[in-house]
Amino acid sequence: MGEKLEHLKSHMATTIDLMHAAALLSWDQEVYMPPQGVEARSQQLATLSTLAHQMFTSDETGELLAEAEAEVAGMDYDSDEASNVRVTRREYDQHTKLPTSLVSEMSLTASQAFAAWRQAREKQDYALFEPHLQKIVDLNRRKADYLGYEAHPYDALLGLFEPGMTTAQVEALFEPLKQGLIPLIQAITAQPQVDDHFLTEPEYDVERQWEFTMLLLRKMGYDFRRGRQDKAPHPFTINFANRDVRVTTRLHPHRPLSAIFGSAHEGGHALYEQGSPDKFERSVLAGGASMGVHESQSRLWENQVSRGKAFWSYYYPILQAFFPEQLEGVPFWEFYRAVNKVEPSFIRVEADEVTYNLHIFVRFELEKSLLTGELSVADLPDAWNAKYQAYLGITPPNDALGCLQDVHWSHGDIGYFPTYTLGNLISAQLYAQIKQEVPGLEDGYRNGEFAPLLTWLREKIHRHARKFTAAELLQRAIGQELDARPLLEYFYQKYAEVYQLEGLTLPAA
Amino acid sequence: MGEKLEHLKSHMATTIDLMHAAALLSWDQEVYMPPQGVEARSQQLATLSTLAHQMFTSDETGELLAEAEAEVAGMDYDSDEASNVRVTRREYDQHTKLPTSLVSEMSLTASQAFAAWRQAREKQDYALFEPHLQKIVDLNRRKADYLGYEAHPYDALLGLFEPGMTTAQVEALFEPLKQGLIPLIQAITAQPQVDDHFLTEPEYDVERQWEFTMLLLRKMGYDFRRGRQDKAPHPFTINFANRDVRVTTRLHPHRPLSAIFGSAHEGGHALYEQGSPDKFERSVLAGGASMGVHESQSRLWENQVSRGKAFWSYYYPILQAFFPEQLEGVPFWEFYRAVNKVEPSFIRVEADEVTYNLHIFVRFELEKSLLTGELSVADLPDAWNAKYQAYLGITPPNDALGCLQDVHWSHGDIGYFPTYTLGNLISAQLYAQIKQEVPGLEDGYRNGEFAPLLTWLREKIHRHARKFTAAELLQRAIGQELDARPLLEYFYQKYAEVYQLEGLTLPAA
Repeated sequence: MGEKLEHLKSHMATTIDLMHAAALLSWDQEVYMPPQGVEARSQQLATLSTLAHQMFTSDETGELLAEAEAEVAGMDYDSDEASNVRVTRREYDQHTKLPTSLVSEMSLTASQAFAAWRQAREKQDYALFEPHLQKIVDLNRRKADYLGYEAHPYDALLGLFEPGMTTAQVEALFEPLKQGLIPLIQAITAQPQVDDHFLTEPEYDVERQWEFTMLLLRKMGYDFRRGRQDKAPHPFTINFANRDVRVTTRLHPHRPLSAIFGSAHEGGHALYEQGSPDKFERSVLAGGASMGVHESQSRLWENQVSRGKAFWSYYYPILQAFFPEQLEGVPFWEFYRAVNKVEPSFIRVEADEVTYNLHIFVRFELEKSLLTGELSVADLPDAWNAKYQAYLGITPPNDALGCLQDVHWSHGDIGYFPTYTLGNLISAQLYAQIKQEVPGLEDGYRNGEFAPLLTWLREKIHRHARKFTAAELLQRAIGQELDARPLLEYFYQKYAEVYQLEGLTLPAA
Repeated sequence: MGEKLEHLKSHMATTIDLMHAAALLSWDQEVYMPPQGVEARSQQLATLSTLAHQMFTSDETGELLAEAEAEVAGMDYDSDEASNVRVTRREYDQHTKLPTSLVSEMSLTASQAFAAWRQAREKQDYALFEPHLQKIVDLNRRKADYLGYEAHPYDALLGLFEPGMTTAQVEALFEPLKQGLIPLIQAITAQPQVDDHFLTEPEYDVERQWEFTMLLLRKMGYDFRRGRQDKAPHPFTINFANRDVRVTTRLHPHRPLSAIFGSAHEGGHALYEQGSPDKFERSVLAGGASMGVHESQSRLWENQVSRGKAFWSYYYPILQAFFPEQLEGVPFWEFYRAVNKVEPSFIRVEADEVTYNLHIFVRFELEKSLLTGELSVADLPDAWNAKYQAYLGITPPNDALGCLQDVHWSHGDIGYFPTYTLGNLISAQLYAQIKQEVPGLEDGYRNGEFAPLLTWLREKIHRHARKFTAAELLQRAIGQELDARPLLEYFYQKYAEVYQLEGLTLPAA
């Protein structure tokens, strides 16, 4: 490797160490910190992120980067060297385009907005949050201007989470998905609803839930020598190295599926991070390609795998052995249908895999109109409720169950939501291809064998870590562009069986 | 407060945040980090401590410090302002006197020495460690020269752990202690030994041990909203703020006292840190006065309190209720004697409170002669064994039970050991005074009341945090100089009863 790139990498390694240290402070704050530690912790986190930001956006980084660019000019686009410089440039430009004053204002606004949002949600009173959201929307408009965009200000914000993706591309993916989902959900809701009372009662012992999730993670291939699971009220995955990738799960005595799918989801994220190659450690190339691709890994394990028939034909007898009182008399087919119950509901994070995407469309469409000013912040609750009625056939009875439910905006983030559905799309594309390339894949699940799936993901996705955008990665992994069709095909095929929908066919593309 | 001091403090706050972040990384490494996380963690810790060191020893600190010194000149020695500047100056000089090259060489030498020490101890082969120890002694000689000293090179090293204390002062304290301890231990070993078999068998359930230590900490006044206890192979206390002070304990099925006294000891350290006033947070004044004073707090709770009769008259019935199988038939007096069994042994960290100090004398005397060159590194094992024979009447059968037992030298630290016995001396001085000032103190223990003790410590010791040296603090708290007599009086009085030593009296001072 060239000397200049070596300098850049060694400079960046220090910044990355600081960011990983900050990540550990956050992890501890969520899982083990005593309650009164919060004030000092906030200061420590602010110090670490300020230092990391200063070091990254320094003139020194700019100079080392320019020198490294000259050095790798002409090298293969896919090479580690060219990719390192390319990704560093992207991040450096993103971070240096925003004036420090805007970053500070956003940070201050967000802490106040977060406090206001919590209160507003608790009191079901949108008016408490409205002025803060107004400020956040205004700041995001300015942010988009500083970052720059061609067609739509939303492009600039989206690009922070999903590099290279434009608003128009997302719309072109979401529109056919919406057109396919709405009739499917209508057909499902016209059927008699499945019975799932045994999934909540009687109480599921939380220690047994914990043991089941540990078994599940181990069988997925999650390496406990390089990670650990803890309990947290909001499950998350976090990493401080590819050899220290931690997950959390949530245990609730009346929601065993929350722990199971929580661990499967976070385990999917964690396998991606554990699969990031050693050679990329302490560099910008360590980790995952984008938020959407990361979400594709978690959704693939959570949905395509862990909500599937093959998965449960292995695990259901084990779950019955763990919880005989609840499940002994429940036949497999009834259990499988209960696990895959589809029902329009108000809260995104509790939605089933089908209706989930409609929750995203609502947010994506509203974010765009807020940003352009087509929709005023004052009119948000009405617009939100109208879209829920249009897409899901239900109207939230209050704003806590409506436009106040998500934390993202209060953190100052606009442009994040689409990555959830992009993750769903990508997971379906990948999974359809894997099933073709790995014969007997799901037969293996029936015997508790998940290694071939992980092997494929490691080889096709994980080993590239952060080198490519989502589109570049999909091209290299499966030779396809992003496409809504495979997710629709997966839904139509699966739910035709679950809900016995005779005669319903996916409209032609 | 003056503007210049304000600048200095705000500059130092960032450095202190980095050090506290590093402390959290260390805590995690000891208690929760997955095994393969160690390499990345070492790099992250190195990055944080290098940055903190660079920031602290920067010219900027020097300039801010000089300006603040001018500003506080003439202010009361005891004022927060003058104390802040004085303590910052002491630390700044210590850190800047050592050239970076020496610091790096020490750090590199120590990592290699630590690995070699572990192997040497495992294989009971001093030769594997000898060349590393030679290097460490040489480096410490150079370190002492850089730091500067008047009478003895050991002064310079000791001063890093026990500011203001000289080797001659330590000798003047240790010599009468030694002269008093040797006849006491001889008298004890001439008596029939107490029976303590019930303290190891049958197996003590570790979950119950855990519950007992949690109860103990709560009753001591340890605030769990501002801390937590976890398990670790080598118990320690660590803090990231005065509102986030954590302890660890060790659970062994055949050594319940290890957990109980471990928690009492670490709890004593932790109460000191939790008692550091809010106004000193993120400043050099937060924390404890010195290693010796810190140790006085842990030893006071561990020995004077938790090995005492009044303590056990409250706790023994509870311990019996936790462990009826082991303790139901054991009368109080037998249990109390077993807890206070005195017996010369090879391993310092397993020693009783009386013989413990002889282990320290051995190390203190050997460190001094190694540093001056009177003793060669090659001759250390023989010198060690000779001193164990002289002071404790036993000769280690191998070097793992002898001069290879402690980790300190392998970390590069010479000059630390005396602070353990200084802590014992100070704890006895304080406790004798507290008993005078707080009537009915130990009667309170019999009812599980420990608050008056903590109140006294908070008022006389904790609230001063790091403002004073050990000698200054003792003067302000109890109007005394450091003195070996109270510890000897405590031992003679207590063990005359435990071992029924008739006619043994403490020689006049």
